[in-house]
Amino acid sequence: MATTTLKGTPFDRQVLDSMLRRRLFYTPSFEIYNGTAGLYDYGPPGCALQANIIDLWRKHFVLEEDMLEVDCTALTPAEILKTSGHVDKFADWMCKDPKNGDIIRADHFVEEILESRLKGDKAARGVTVAAKEEDPKKKKKKTKGIAEAVKLEDAVVKEYEEVLAKIDNYNGEELGELIKKYELKNPATDVQPEPPVAFNLMFQTAIGPSSNAPGYLRPETAQGQFVNFAKLLEFNQQQMPFASASIGKSFRNEISPRSGLLRVREFLMAEIEHFVDPEGGKKHPRFHEVADIELVLLNKHTQLSGKTDLDKVTIGKAVADGTVDNETLGYFLARIHLFLKKIGVDQSKIRFRQHMANEMAHYAADCWDAELQTSYGWIECVGCADRSAYDLTVHAKKTGAPLFVRERLDKPITIEEWQIDLDKKKFGPFFKKDGKTIETAIEALSQEKREALAQDLKADGKITVDVEGVGNGKVEVSKDLIAIERRTRTENTREYTPNVIEPSFGIGRILYCLFEHNYWTRGSDGGDEARGVLSFPPTVAPTKVLLVPLSSNESFKPLVKDMSLKLRALGISSRVDDSSASIGKRYSRNDELGTPLGITIDFQSVKDKTFTLRDRDSTKQVRADEDSIFAAIRSLVDGSKVWADIEKELPVFEGQDLEAELPWSSTRDMVIYTDRILCAMPRHKEKFIAPAPKGLVHSMLRSTARRVGEL
Amino acid sequence: MATTTLKGTPFDRQVLDSMLRRRLFYTPSFEIYNGTAGLYDYGPPGCALQANIIDLWRKHFVLEEDMLEVDCTALTPAEILKTSGHVDKFADWMCKDPKNGDIIRADHFVEEILESRLKGDKAARGVTVAAKEEDPKKKKKKTKGIAEAVKLEDAVVKEYEEVLAKIDNYNGEELGELIKKYELKNPATDVQPEPPVAFNLMFQTAIGPSSNAPGYLRPETAQGQFVNFAKLLEFNQQQMPFASASIGKSFRNEISPRSGLLRVREFLMAEIEHFVDPEGGKKHPRFHEVADIELVLLNKHTQLSGKTDLDKVTIGKAVADGTVDNETLGYFLARIHLFLKKIGVDQSKIRFRQHMANEMAHYAADCWDAELQTSYGWIECVGCADRSAYDLTVHAKKTGAPLFVRERLDKPITIEEWQIDLDKKKFGPFFKKDGKTIETAIEALSQEKREALAQDLKADGKITVDVEGVGNGKVEVSKDLIAIERRTRTENTREYTPNVIEPSFGIGRILYCLFEHNYWTRGSDGGDEARGVLSFPPTVAPTKVLLVPLSSNESFKPLVKDMSLKLRALGISSRVDDSSASIGKRYSRNDELGTPLGITIDFQSVKDKTFTLRDRDSTKQVRADEDSIFAAIRSLVDGSKVWADIEKELPVFEGQDLEAELPWSSTRDMVIYTDRILCAMPRHKEKFIAPAPKGLVHSMLRSTARRVGEL
Repeated sequence: MATTTLKGTPFDRQVLDSMLRRRLFYTPSFEIYNGTAGLYDYGPPGCALQANIIDLWRKHFVLEEDMLEVDCTALTPAEILKTSGHVDKFADWMCKDPKNGDIIRADHFVEEILESRLKGDKAARGVTVAAKEEDPKKKKKKTKGIAEAVKLEDAVVKEYEEVLAKIDNYNGEELGELIKKYELKNPATDVQPEPPVAFNLMFQTAIGPSSNAPGYLRPETAQGQFVNFAKLLEFNQQQMPFASASIGKSFRNEISPRSGLLRVREFLMAEIEHFVDPEGGKKHPRFHEVADIELVLLNKHTQLSGKTDLDKVTIGKAVADGTVDNETLGYFLARIHLFLKKIGVDQSKIRFRQHMANEMAHYAADCWDAELQTSYGWIECVGCADRSAYDLTVHAKKTGAPLFVRERLDKPITIEEWQIDLDKKKFGPFFKKDGKTIETAIEALSQEKREALAQDLKADGKITVDVEGVGNGKVEVSKDLIAIERRTRTENTREYTPNVIEPSFGIGRILYCLFEHNYWTRGSDGGDEARGVLSFPPTVAPTKVLLVPLSSNESFKPLVKDMSLKLRALGISSRVDDSSASIGKRYSRNDELGTPLGITIDFQSVKDKTFTLRDRDSTKQVRADEDSIFAAIRSLVDGSKVWADIEKELPVFEGQDLEAELPWSSTRDMVIYTDRILCAMPRHKEKFIAPAPKGLVHSMLRSTARRVGEL
Repeated sequence: MATTTLKGTPFDRQVLDSMLRRRLFYTPSFEIYNGTAGLYDYGPPGCALQANIIDLWRKHFVLEEDMLEVDCTALTPAEILKTSGHVDKFADWMCKDPKNGDIIRADHFVEEILESRLKGDKAARGVTVAAKEEDPKKKKKKTKGIAEAVKLEDAVVKEYEEVLAKIDNYNGEELGELIKKYELKNPATDVQPEPPVAFNLMFQTAIGPSSNAPGYLRPETAQGQFVNFAKLLEFNQQQMPFASASIGKSFRNEISPRSGLLRVREFLMAEIEHFVDPEGGKKHPRFHEVADIELVLLNKHTQLSGKTDLDKVTIGKAVADGTVDNETLGYFLARIHLFLKKIGVDQSKIRFRQHMANEMAHYAADCWDAELQTSYGWIECVGCADRSAYDLTVHAKKTGAPLFVRERLDKPITIEEWQIDLDKKKFGPFFKKDGKTIETAIEALSQEKREALAQDLKADGKITVDVEGVGNGKVEVSKDLIAIERRTRTENTREYTPNVIEPSFGIGRILYCLFEHNYWTRGSDGGDEARGVLSFPPTVAPTKVLLVPLSSNESFKPLVKDMSLKLRALGISSRVDDSSASIGKRYSRNDELGTPLGITIDFQSVKDKTFTLRDRDSTKQVRADEDSIFAAIRSLVDGSKVWADIEKELPVFEGQDLEAELPWSSTRDMVIYTDRILCAMPRHKEKFIAPAPKGLVHSMLRSTARRVGEL
C-alpha cells in the first residue's frame, strides 16, 4: 500500500526528509566528521517537540495514575545484565559476506531479498506497483539482482508471503536455512552470506580505573526499576498494585542501522513497570473506563497462519474472549492508544500486533506492540509486555534481596508440613566449614523429599542428603544432629512476587511517525511551489505562536515585545519573525516548523490594540482584542478547544493575507495585501490607494509598487 | 568552619543522608548488588526536584534569551574527542599503592593527608575542632596515621595551608613531588604510593559490530553543539550573537568516587554555548540589566598567594576593573547567581572562584566556578568558561567545515596583498601525483614568504618551496608554472570564528547542595524527637500540596478526589495522604519530603466547602473557600507571592493542629485537636466534648480517648 500524506495525497519521503533537515528538526550526529550510522541529534524544533511529547506522557501516565518516577543510571555493571539474561540473549543474528566483509542483519536481509523478488514477480505479471520509497544511496549500491521483472510460480509467491508474515519468528538457524533454501545472495557481491551468528546488542565499557569491572550501557530502563523494587514498594507505603516509570536514554549497538530515525543506537525511552498481584486474573480497577475503546488488533494466530488481517474490536471484548490475556494488559493497550491519539498520530495508521512465541523477548509472557504505519512499513513504537515475575525472581534469587510483597491475610491459614530441626550446637562444630552449605541445602528440601527422609531417619537413624560442592556431593547426617517432624503452622501473611506489565515507548520512533502522519503540502496556488506543512496538534507543536510584525516599522516593536513577554508569562512558547521576508514567506517557514498559530501585528493593532490570529491548517484568521486572542490561544494550546470553536466565537478576518510591504519613501510605507494596496502615512495613518491586481504574486510586487507609486 | 543548617544550628550530615535515603530522594544504584561507586538513582522526590530545576533552568536561560536547544548523542566517535583534545588531555592523576593495589586520586590524597595533619596539629594545640562530617565507612578504613594529635612547626602549618589553597593548580609531577617531600603515606598500608600517572576519565566503547570504530561516552555536552555550529547559525538566520543549549547526561570515569552525589560517574548537565564576536571586547547588550548585582568573588591572584579571601563587588565593577574579563562572561556570572538564588540556594553560601592557570581546562581562556558551601567544603556546581575560539577552530581545521561567521561589511575594505597564480594546465601534469600536495603547500604560504619568493622568482626564474612528504621536502617551481604579484582586492565581507562563553551546570551537585542548604530540624516540642524539614521554595519542591483528609471517614473522599483533580488541571502536583497516621505524623512525613503546602479536609469542609491551607515552614494555617485557597496556592507555586502575603489576605486559622482522630464507635468519630476534643456525630455534625488536656502528645491519645469516651 502506498503511503499518503495527512491529506491523502502521495507521500514523498525525500521531500519531507530534506525539509526536516533544513528546518533542523534533526540532523545526523557529527555530520562534519561524515557522521556515524544510527546516531542523530535533534535541533531546536525537534528538541521542543520531544520535550512536549515527554511532558504529555508524564501527565497522561505518571500524574494520572500516581506512578513513581525514577531516574536510574544508564551505566550498568555486567552482573545485573547477566542476571536479567541480556548478556546471554540480547542479540540479533548477523551474517558476514565472505567476499567483501559486509556485515548484514540476517532477518532484514531475508526480508529485503524476498520482498524484492515479489516485486519483480508483480512487474513481470504487469501489475503496477507504487514505487516504495527507497533511500537513494541504497538504490545505487544494489544494482545487481534486485527487482528484476522475473515471474515466480504461484506456489512460490504464496510461500514467500508466508515467510514474510512471520519473519520475526525465525531464529538464527532457521534464517540460515531460508538463505540456503532460497539461494539468497548479497546484491553487492552476488554471493551467499555466511550462516548467521548471534551479535550482542549492548555497548560494553569498563567502570572504574582497574578494568576488572565490566559494564554495559543499559538497553532498556527497566532493570533500574526492578532492582529498586523493594524501596519503591516501601515508598508506596506497601500498597499494591503500583507502577514505577522512567524516562531516559537507552543504547543498542544495532548491526547496520538504517531507516533514519527509526533504527538508532541511542534513543529516548519512556517505560512503565506496573507491578500487579498475579493471583485473581490481573484485574484492573479502572478497566471499565476504557472497555469500550476500539483497537485494531493483529493477533499471533493470524500471523502464524501467514496472514496480516486486522480485527477492530473493543478492548473489553478482546480481554473477554482471551485475545488479550488480562485486564491490566488490556487497560494499558487502551491507554497507549489514547496517548498516541492525543499527540497527533493518524488514527487510521495504528495497529496492535501480538508477538509470536519465538519473537517474544526472553522474559515476556505475552506482548503486544503498538505499530504505526509509515513509508517504511508498520513500525513498532510502543511495546506492551507482560514480563510475568521473571525479572524480580531472577534478581531476588541472585542477590537474596526481598523483591516480593508481604500481604496480611484477612483470614489466617493453617498449613500442615514437614519441619526440620537442626541441633545447631552440635551441627556446626561437626561439619566445620561445610556447615553453612549443608544447612542451606537441607533447608531447601521439598516437602516430598522431607517426608521420604523422615522415614529414612526413622528406619536408619541417619539420612543422606545431596549437597553440591561438599565431598562427593553426598552428606550423611545422623539423628543426633537432625529431627524431621510433621507439624501445623499458622500463616497470617502471604508472600508473592508481583508480575510486571510493561508499556515501553520509543520516543524517537513516535516522533518520526508524527512527522509522516502530520505532513502534507498546500496545493500550488498562484504559481507558487507546493509548500510543506506539519499539522502537529497545538499541544505538542514545538512553538505555539509566531509573532509577525507587518514590517520593520518602529511602531510595531513595543507591541511585539509586549505580546512576547505576555505569552512567556502564560507559559506559551512563541517566536518573533521580524525578518524582511513577506508575511506569506514568514508563515510558510512556520508551516514547515509546524507552528499552529500566528499573530499579525499591523497598523490597526497600533491604533486599537486588536490583533489577527491565524490558523496554520486552514490559514483562516480572526481579529479581536488582546485578551480574547490570548484566551483563544490558551484554549487551543491546552487542547480544550479547536479552531472551529474559535471561529464561532471571534469575528473572522478576511481582508488580510498580506503579501508584502515595500518601503516607498522615507516617510511612507506601502502595504500590499492580496486584495488591496495601502499607503501608510506618517504617524501610521493608513490610506487606501488601489485594489490589488488580481492574482498578485510576489514576483510582481516591484512593478506593482512602481505603478501604484505613480497613482 | 563548621557547617550549619538553614536555621544556623549545627549540621549533621549522617542524619540528613539517612533521611534523604529513607524518603528515596536518592539511592545508590544497584544496591542489592552491593552498588557501584559513583552511580546513584533518584527516587520519586529526587526525580521531581530534578525535573523542576530543569524546568526553571529552561525558563531562566533558554526561553528568556531564545537559546537554541539541541539534544545530541552521548555516544561520540573517538575522532571528535581526539580533535577536541579530550583523548589526550582529559585526565586526572592517579597513584597506585604498591602494597595493596589501591588506586588513589593524587590531588585528593595530598589534600586529605595534609588536612588531617593540620587537624592533628590543632588538636595538639588544644584548639577545639568541629568534627568534620565523615562517611562512617571511611572512618573505619583509615585507622592508621590519621588525625593524630601531633603539633607542627608554625612554618609547616603555613606551608600546608598554602599548598591546600592552590591544590587545584598542581600537575602530576608536582603532586608526586609533594608526596615525596611531605612523606605522605596511604593510611591503609602505611606506605608511600607510586608516582602519579594520568588516567583518562572517558568511558570507552566500540560503535557497531566491526570493532574498528572506537567511541566514548561524552564527558560534556559541548562538543555536540560545536560540531553543529554551522547548522545552528543557519537556523538562527545568520544572526550573531546567539546561544545554543543542551540538557543531558554526561559520563566521567572517576578514579575513586566519594562524596556521595557530588562526585559521580554519570550525571545530568545543562550547558550553554554562547557564541560571540571576539572583536569589540565581547560586550553584551543586556549587561546593564545585571551590572548592579553583587557577587562574592575569589580571584586567581588571591589563591596563588595562598589565600582564600573573598571580595563582595558588583559585577559591573568587576568587569570594569578587569577582574572578570569581559561583559559577556560577567553577564552570565550574574545570571547564574540569579538562577541559584531562584531555586533556593543559600545566599550566604555562594562564591565565584576564578581558575588558576594550570587548573584551567585545556581549552579555556578564563574560567569562574560558582561554588556552593557544604559540609564537604566549597563545591564547584557551575563552571563559566571563556573557551575562546578553541573548539570551533580545531574542528574546522580537522574537517574543513565552515565553522565561522561571514558578516557583510558596512563599508567594503581594500586589501593589498601578494597573490599567487598557478598555471593549472601545466602544473598538474608536471608534478603528477604530488601536484595537489604542492599546490596546497603553496597556497598556505604567508604574505611575508610570498614577498620573498616573488623576489626569488624575479632573480632566479624559479623558487624553492618546503613541501612535507614530497621528495626531500623541497620542491622547485619554475616561472612558467607560477606567478607572484602584488594586487589590490576588495572585501565586502568579514569572516571570523566566534568565541564561546560556556556556562555549564552540574545539576546533581546543585541538587545535593539544595538539600544541605534547605535542611533544618524543628526543635523538639512536647517530647517528640527533632523532626527534619526541607524548606525548598515552592517553585522547585517535588510535590506542591499534600491533601490530608482528617480521617478515613467516607464523607471526605469525594472532596479529596475533587481537589486532587482540580489541582492536576492547574498543573500543580499534589499527593493524597489518607493513611491512618495522625495529621501531625502525616505532615511530618511531608516536611521531610519538602512539600510546602498542606490542605486539610475536615468536617467543616464537608459542611461549607472551606479548607485550611498550611505553610510547611511556619506551620501556620489560613482557612478560606476553595477558590481563594487555589488562588493562594497558584501564586505561591509560581513564585509571585510568599506565605506572609497569604496570611495578610486570608483569615488565619488557629484552632486546628490536629493530632489524631480515633474511631470511637461505628457511628461516631472522635477528633482530637491540640486544644479541644470533638465528637463527630452521624451525618457529620460536630459536637464539642471537652478541652484537650494541656501538653497532649500522641502517646497519650489512647488514654485520653478512653477518658473522653466516659464523659
